[in-house]
Amino acid sequence: MGCRFDRHVHGKKVIVVTNTTIAPLYLDKVVEALTKGNPAVSVEYVILPDGEKFKDMDTLMKVFDKAIESRLDRRCTFVALGGGVIGDMCGFAAASFLRGVNFIQIPTTVMAQVDSSVGGKTGINHPLGKNLIGAFYQPQCVLIDTDTLDTLPDRELASGLAEVIKYGLIRDAEFFEWQEKNMEKLIARNPNALAYAIKRSCENKAEVVSLDEKESGLRATLNLGHTFGHAIETGFGYGQWLHGEAVAAGTVMAVDMSYRLGWIDSSIVKRVDDILLRAKLPTAPPETMTVEMFKSVIAVDKKVADGLLRLILLKGPLGNCVFTGEYDRKALDNTLSAFCKS
Amino acid sequence: MGCRFDRHVHGKKVIVVTNTTIAPLYLDKVVEALTKGNPAVSVEYVILPDGEKFKDMDTLMKVFDKAIESRLDRRCTFVALGGGVIGDMCGFAAASFLRGVNFIQIPTTVMAQVDSSVGGKTGINHPLGKNLIGAFYQPQCVLIDTDTLDTLPDRELASGLAEVIKYGLIRDAEFFEWQEKNMEKLIARNPNALAYAIKRSCENKAEVVSLDEKESGLRATLNLGHTFGHAIETGFGYGQWLHGEAVAAGTVMAVDMSYRLGWIDSSIVKRVDDILLRAKLPTAPPETMTVEMFKSVIAVDKKVADGLLRLILLKGPLGNCVFTGEYDRKALDNTLSAFCKS
Repeated sequence: MGCRFDRHVHGKKVIVVTNTTIAPLYLDKVVEALTKGNPAVSVEYVILPDGEKFKDMDTLMKVFDKAIESRLDRRCTFVALGGGVIGDMCGFAAASFLRGVNFIQIPTTVMAQVDSSVGGKTGINHPLGKNLIGAFYQPQCVLIDTDTLDTLPDRELASGLAEVIKYGLIRDAEFFEWQEKNMEKLIARNPNALAYAIKRSCENKAEVVSLDEKESGLRATLNLGHTFGHAIETGFGYGQWLHGEAVAAGTVMAVDMSYRLGWIDSSIVKRVDDILLRAKLPTAPPETMTVEMFKSVIAVDKKVADGLLRLILLKGPLGNCVFTGEYDRKALDNTLSAFCKS
Repeated sequence: MGCRFDRHVHGKKVIVVTNTTIAPLYLDKVVEALTKGNPAVSVEYVILPDGEKFKDMDTLMKVFDKAIESRLDRRCTFVALGGGVIGDMCGFAAASFLRGVNFIQIPTTVMAQVDSSVGGKTGINHPLGKNLIGAFYQPQCVLIDTDTLDTLPDRELASGLAEVIKYGLIRDAEFFEWQEKNMEKLIARNPNALAYAIKRSCENKAEVVSLDEKESGLRATLNLGHTFGHAIETGFGYGQWLHGEAVAAGTVMAVDMSYRLGWIDSSIVKRVDDILLRAKLPTAPPETMTVEMFKSVIAVDKKVADGLLRLILLKGPLGNCVFTGEYDRKALDNTLSAFCKS
């Protein structure tokens, strides 16, 4: 956090939104960086409980309460310091407070650095589904300091790699092949390998988002494995599995379905399984998930249009995918049956 | 409601958001208009309690609950059927549901027809202040049927006229003079007079908003009297006075302050008082309001920038105003003292 923020902070008041895990590690450093060379800036903060299960309206209201008590005005800046949950909630708070104020992302997990902090998707969960309430709201800047990953738990590191692997599968075969060569380095937190993987992921995401910010089509491809993954997170209760773990299992299911449809050959199925295992990620949903649990959750997925569930599926050589509602329903049923005991 | 909506409804699912007062009067007609010539459309509805005091997060969540239970998807349309409270809440729900869906306004009060339904400001109140949480979100269309005003209570009619008078004061002297000639017709609900006043008001608002959607300056002038008015609404408890009643008293205070600053001559003060009285609107805040109540609420007003309260004040001949933080603080103090017993 040796950098300076004065280029990005417009008004004199800043609120840092963080959580109980990150605050003791980095809050002081961020406050120092925000005020260095900028002594007129006053910094407030709100420390939220840590975890996906707090990504809800009640916790969001705590951010508004603090912002209003601190008399923040339209020229203030909201800073998200934390992982994807903090970034999504702080971003939605920034989008909604006084109908929109400045917003800076400082992501501290691989997941947030390679995916959620880039592209402006913000929001909270509803008891019936993830991210159902939110806004498209772009941050003023995203500041990534890979040193923050030193304190990241192993499971969190692996979770973020699920999204790194995704970029390779949907649009960047060369990147996937690089990962196949370097997965052990990533798991061992080799700084150069991590920096390259994060940079390449951000480039992929930024390209897709700049072509389709509001997700009319192309951007949806970033959700490979996420429909099944969201069902796992919802059905299993938020916070049991990490987002990337659910996405990993969901990716295996999407790949399985793509293969059943005859759209990819078996070598891709095997390579996906292999790389996820090497990244220490699950390759099947929790045993307690039933076909019914999947079906009830995917019915309310945001990618349903006029009742038809569109999915991201692989099609063709490695690095190619489609976003479509035109597939044989039997393949979906067969995939669900194959991965569920009942 | 003889019109057809099929041009404006994109998907197959519509949710009408209305309240307990409007539903028995117009819900059936709107559902009929939505489905006529469009039999594939299914219409859900949610009927909220009526009143500004329900413009809160809990009530908003009822809209999300219904939308999610009804499995609405991104191609659905939210229809606001009611006054400003319904329009603001439904608009914010549409802005936030699945990060934004189609939105249609059917305003049923003068206030909503001349002001809140046009321009895309949406939001809810926080216990510490009005409209502190929301979004800029433009409706697909605004459908105004002046027949809906037949059932509007007299106080509500007068409340809307406060905003009509505002357009004259801030930018349209000719319109103000027309109102001086026609106020009794408006109060008597003469259809032609009402239609003209609504049309001219919408034109004024649309011009201002098209020049400054996000309120970087010009748009703020639409808030003449609103800073004092919001203080009255907040200090007095939402729902005691109608919005336009509070704005009317706030306008008198802003005009008083403009006169104390020497920015307008006394004839304008008198004409504002006269026309508000003829519109059956209050010309002073409730007697229970104290200087301290005003000060504590205006400190969190959205127009505060870096601690400085900017106000909309009249300056020059009729039809001219400024939005500024550069004024003698004594004039503000003197105005507050003049209108408060303590």
